[in-house]
Amino acid sequence: MKLTKHATPWLGLTLVVVSAVSLEAHPRARTPVRLPDVPGYLTLKCDFHIHTVFSDGSVWPDIRSEEAWREGLDAIAITDHIEYQPHKADLPTQHNRSHEIAKPRGDELRVTVIRGSEITRQMPPGHLNAIFLEDATRLDTTEWRDAVGEAHRQGAFIFWNHPGWRGQQPNGVAKWYEEHTDLVTRGWLHGIEVVNGREYYPEAHAWCLEKNLTMLSNSDVHNPLNLDYDVPAGDHRPLTLVFARENTPGAIREALFDRRTAVYSDHRLVGREVFLRPLFERSIQLRNPEVSLRPKQRVYLQLHNDSDVPFELELADDVPDLSVTRDLTLHAGKTTLLSLQRGAGGDPGEREVAITYRVKNVLVGPYEALKAAVRVKVRFVGAP
Amino acid sequence: MKLTKHATPWLGLTLVVVSAVSLEAHPRARTPVRLPDVPGYLTLKCDFHIHTVFSDGSVWPDIRSEEAWREGLDAIAITDHIEYQPHKADLPTQHNRSHEIAKPRGDELRVTVIRGSEITRQMPPGHLNAIFLEDATRLDTTEWRDAVGEAHRQGAFIFWNHPGWRGQQPNGVAKWYEEHTDLVTRGWLHGIEVVNGREYYPEAHAWCLEKNLTMLSNSDVHNPLNLDYDVPAGDHRPLTLVFARENTPGAIREALFDRRTAVYSDHRLVGREVFLRPLFERSIQLRNPEVSLRPKQRVYLQLHNDSDVPFELELADDVPDLSVTRDLTLHAGKTTLLSLQRGAGGDPGEREVAITYRVKNVLVGPYEALKAAVRVKVRFVGAP
Amino acid sequence: MKLTKHATPWLGLTLVVVSAVSLEAHPRARTPVRLPDVPGYLTLKCDFHIHTVFSDGSVWPDIRSEEAWREGLDAIAITDHIEYQPHKADLPTQHNRSHEIAKPRGDELRVTVIRGSEITRQMPPGHLNAIFLEDATRLDTTEWRDAVGEAHRQGAFIFWNHPGWRGQQPNGVAKWYEEHTDLVTRGWLHGIEVVNGREYYPEAHAWCLEKNLTMLSNSDVHNPLNLDYDVPAGDHRPLTLVFARENTPGAIREALFDRRTAVYSDHRLVGREVFLRPLFERSIQLRNPEVSLRPKQRVYLQLHNDSDVPFELELADDVPDLSVTRDLTLHAGKTTLLSLQRGAGGDPGEREVAITYRVKNVLVGPYEALKAAVRVKVRFVGAP
Amino acid sequence: MKLTKHATPWLGLTLVVVSAVSLEAHPRARTPVRLPDVPGYLTLKCDFHIHTVFSDGSVWPDIRSEEAWREGLDAIAITDHIEYQPHKADLPTQHNRSHEIAKPRGDELRVTVIRGSEITRQMPPGHLNAIFLEDATRLDTTEWRDAVGEAHRQGAFIFWNHPGWRGQQPNGVAKWYEEHTDLVTRGWLHGIEVVNGREYYPEAHAWCLEKNLTMLSNSDVHNPLNLDYDVPAGDHRPLTLVFARENTPGAIREALFDRRTAVYSDHRLVGREVFLRPLFERSIQLRNPEVSLRPKQRVYLQLHNDSDVPFELELADDVPDLSVTRDLTLHAGKTTLLSLQRGAGGDPGEREVAITYRVKNVLVGPYEALKAAVRVKVRFVGAP
Repeated sequence: MKLTKHATPWLGLTLVVVSAVSLEAHPRARTPVRLPDVPGYLTLKCDFHIHTVFSDGSVWPDIRSEEAWREGLDAIAITDHIEYQPHKADLPTQHNRSHEIAKPRGDELRVTVIRGSEITRQMPPGHLNAIFLEDATRLDTTEWRDAVGEAHRQGAFIFWNHPGWRGQQPNGVAKWYEEHTDLVTRGWLHGIEVVNGREYYPEAHAWCLEKNLTMLSNSDVHNPLNLDYDVPAGDHRPLTLVFARENTPGAIREALFDRRTAVYSDHRLVGREVFLRPLFERSIQLRNPEVSLRPKQRVYLQLHNDSDVPFELELADDVPDLSVTRDLTLHAGKTTLLSLQRGAGGDPGEREVAITYRVKNVLVGPYEALKAAVRVKVRFVGAP
Repeated sequence: MKLTKHATPWLGLTLVVVSAVSLEAHPRARTPVRLPDVPGYLTLKCDFHIHTVFSDGSVWPDIRSEEAWREGLDAIAITDHIEYQPHKADLPTQHNRSHEIAKPRGDELRVTVIRGSEITRQMPPGHLNAIFLEDATRLDTTEWRDAVGEAHRQGAFIFWNHPGWRGQQPNGVAKWYEEHTDLVTRGWLHGIEVVNGREYYPEAHAWCLEKNLTMLSNSDVHNPLNLDYDVPAGDHRPLTLVFARENTPGAIREALFDRRTAVYSDHRLVGREVFLRPLFERSIQLRNPEVSLRPKQRVYLQLHNDSDVPFELELADDVPDLSVTRDLTLHAGKTTLLSLQRGAGGDPGEREVAITYRVKNVLVGPYEALKAAVRVKVRFVGAP
Repeated sequence: MKLTKHATPWLGLTLVVVSAVSLEAHPRARTPVRLPDVPGYLTLKCDFHIHTVFSDGSVWPDIRSEEAWREGLDAIAITDHIEYQPHKADLPTQHNRSHEIAKPRGDELRVTVIRGSEITRQMPPGHLNAIFLEDATRLDTTEWRDAVGEAHRQGAFIFWNHPGWRGQQPNGVAKWYEEHTDLVTRGWLHGIEVVNGREYYPEAHAWCLEKNLTMLSNSDVHNPLNLDYDVPAGDHRPLTLVFARENTPGAIREALFDRRTAVYSDHRLVGREVFLRPLFERSIQLRNPEVSLRPKQRVYLQLHNDSDVPFELELADDVPDLSVTRDLTLHAGKTTLLSLQRGAGGDPGEREVAITYRVKNVLVGPYEALKAAVRVKVRFVGAP
Repeated sequence: MKLTKHATPWLGLTLVVVSAVSLEAHPRARTPVRLPDVPGYLTLKCDFHIHTVFSDGSVWPDIRSEEAWREGLDAIAITDHIEYQPHKADLPTQHNRSHEIAKPRGDELRVTVIRGSEITRQMPPGHLNAIFLEDATRLDTTEWRDAVGEAHRQGAFIFWNHPGWRGQQPNGVAKWYEEHTDLVTRGWLHGIEVVNGREYYPEAHAWCLEKNLTMLSNSDVHNPLNLDYDVPAGDHRPLTLVFARENTPGAIREALFDRRTAVYSDHRLVGREVFLRPLFERSIQLRNPEVSLRPKQRVYLQLHNDSDVPFELELADDVPDLSVTRDLTLHAGKTTLLSLQRGAGGDPGEREVAITYRVKNVLVGPYEALKAAVRVKVRFVGAP
């Protein structure tokens, strides 16, 4: 029987009193995802595509809340398949039940658990997640349009899952159908998964920018999370970053409809520049913003990265009179050196120098890296 | 929908062809438990106490086979509670079903999955596991004796679970009742859990030696295993080591009835000396078994430990004419130095020297460490 | 020849252009020691006892600055032995030279490198470190009192090293001699190492409190640091925490003379309560400071520990009407749960509840743990 | 003063006797490099290019023996520069001294320490290492040919270091000069570094094959090793694998002249197929070499990799009637699954099936991967 066990330390050979001796337990603890907030909004870490034993997943629903808490998430949606119920001979279909079971554990741990469902159809339109539902059972319809329409009537936020999934697109290329145009036109489709699990869909990324849709990044996890992600080693599930006014279900829903999201997957960020620029800039602190340089002297700038993302920088533009580090990884949680060397020339005096890098793992467009500058005040001393 | 996804390497900004880009996946791999075989027998790594969603556990049964394979186990028993079925409103009771679901995955991965059940009663007799059952449903009886008798009739191996569990013994002290004497007398009780989860029961250890019962060490896991054990960091679930003629269900059953087991928990070994001595001795290799020493000279013996167990040694007896390391950890998978220093004296000539240690984390009795010797040929050169 | 090498990514089999291919380098980065500042002062991380090849150490002096920078230190003192020069046949004695070599690398990396020496004599008075010297060569005297007097004349801060070192006290018990009383009376002895390397001296801890001396904790490292400390795995060298007005040599010197220090060793803190209390309290944040409880209900408080120290808590006093977690580790960098359960009783209404713990690894006296309270507003709802 | 300290366990608040309390030390232990022997030879792990404070390195020479022992090496050569002596104002030049200091620690730990020197000249011929010298001082000549000739007269094994080093070849492309032809013709040049530190030189790889020279892979380490390689995390220094009849200096020298070596760098192997094929094949064990398959059935082959090298496999040829895993990493020390699925066809009966992969990180030529087959007996059961 499962029960909390009282811990007595294992005292080895010196113990005399005979009683149960407890060995040190693996701690139950929450590890934060270290990412800064952005101006005006909290940066919430969310996963809106999760399965349980109530469709084809492998865990009891409360485990999803426990995993989310331990991994530093703020909100999850449980989104079991409506149409695909492989366990139903043992576990009869109940579309609302996984949410009902997961939510109390979420409440206890202060993780928001959102009611959702995956409308699971042939392509087009493929698989669609509807979250913030009132009653998932009413999505169990014959016609897919009825299901999506019902979700919309319930006020759901609806997004297209893994559009380039090889199960439906054997060449891995996401394809836009007129059904999707129809859904967007009706206001029944609000976002697309740019990342699902370990896959990134560049076309989805472009569509979100072109059609002004919300970008999502979700795990679509079926296994216990730790079988798919080596979390203790720094691996992380894909997250939808939600920029919300506060940490409440309502504020998350508002942010989703308002397209205030970014993709955080495999230590890469994808999204709109308005959010990614402050995410990067607030993560980095230049510890010595003023330096002086004699001719041919080299100094180091110390850049501290307080986030979990190891930013990979590549010099975008040469800097007059200075030779600077061209390729640089700003390691997560560490301080890294940027070398700055004055050449033989350069007029004496003080200058504001901007050293512009492409941040290769921060994408503001498909294959378009964020450009960001390290700004430093350099005093050139001594004649060249 | 769950489906194997084809992997294309993420090529960063250089990608031109637009298609789904896969990120590096967390590997699906099996990590062996490194422990040597003993003379005449294979050392099989087993866990005979495991729950699933079919009683009060949190995972679908096939996950238990997957976890066992990844962690290097050879055999598991799924032992859901007969009498405790908290999920039954959602998942109707089917006592054989968790085994039926877990076994195909075990077959696929070459992990033996044994049919079992936990007979879950008040103390006495407390909770009893019956494994190698034919039909678990017939254990669902009103009287506990009928359930145990039925298990016995089916040929099951039966053991008493967590005898000092504070849910039934609030002071944590295991207590032997006349019901247990009766079960042993009838041949209906064959072993006891000396370790359950993170708890060690020294009384159970003593009873197994006194009453000639089989020692077991099981996880009693309910959660996904990785929520309770930090496996990638070297933490491991408790294992019953079974010394079997071959890796088959029949040979495991035979070994259990023949008491050929040991307890492996939290990098400690508990059991009968006949098995623990070779487990230790075959794990350790002295790399330089012959040394020579001038007066006052120091040399190092190099002890390689090829097992996963960091053996903790404490000198048992002083060695004439030599000063040796008193406290020594033989780190798992590494070579450690044992310092040997000759004093001013010692007659010239060659001697076989035995340096005897207590191996503090290998218990051959409750609080009784294995004594083992490092044997080295020492040539004393030079007059004192 | 040593030279910075330009990095080209290894492109495996796809490379066509033939040129040197660089493999990924181990990063040169600084990992901060996460400890909060205290009111009015910065918390600087320092090591004031370090050797190089210029006495009996094993590294060229500039490596000490590099190691210190990578490990997040703010200041170090190089303190080679005056009297013990085992390398002098190869490397002629030059008492100031190790500081001269280490300092430019420290300047480049913004680590303060202080000139020091270890006056290395028989007990009494044993070994004394003098730091903030002007000229170490003048400490090379016949009489130890002349060396200490000279250090004092140069304005040095002088402390007694490893007073319980078995090289001079075979029983490991530090002993106070009248020579030490004399030194203190003259104002020539200002502090004592409470920790040296892996050793803690409780007597030294008591003497610092009784005699109003500065507590120090230093590595006394001779090897390359990483041979003695497994830094990447979270092991850390012992540090003297200096509570200084600013990060300058002068402010560090002032703080040392003013006894504004604490000992940080093996994830334990030792020192005066005035500094240790805010170090603990500022490390911990209660994420949900207001809760409500019905009879028999349990809630979890979430305690986030933003420091590198895994604080080990033990309940000091029972809490009326509530049952709370008795033993609790606040894991470094993580959020941990504290369980709060209301009994059957308790009058309705709102109360300020203080849950008082002993923080076992924060010592405000020898074997005296800091007592600290978690404060929470609890609303008792519902009649008992 | 440096001295072994006796360890008493830290007993926290329960200690009563006042004495020095020792904290747990970072272990001094040797971690083996797990690579199999090859037919007829031991696989020795060696590094033949290492610096100390006696030229431009940063550690006292005995540290090089200690590092080598801990990292599982069998032999090292200390090869300080003859011509480049930046520390000489402090540490007067003594070309044999670093070997004399390193050797006793090597002897104590059973690591072979070979006397060597780096002849450090402009390109051509660049830098050449001479190892197995009798007296390094005689290499301190004005003309580089005199130095090489003298090394040859002493019986040294001589190799060209880092031929594509950007310090001498700014474009990173190694260039062969007539001086090198001359050296080879005279029998004064026996090998080339194919890897130096983090760099791989594909041209050197080709030249070794074309001109029948010995391939080397060395660290050229100047810093304490752990500052450049994150050894505890699995990073390793580049090694020259020497296939020797026994672990003695003479057998190593013989093997070098006989070109029995391979390059092991960043978990990649480069060398002659005659050695690399058995290195790979003996590392891998197929756990289930006989399987049976019904039409459309899938089974898993279990491939255990007992080495430290994560072999990366890519299918070379399709297999008739079977669909097999195309891309597969055989993780170091783990068992990985290879999926084998029968199509609808295939005649009943038993067949020997060879599944041929390119092992992408085992190079038998520049950019030419080893091809190796997994061989399995497949019984096709049931008509298609």
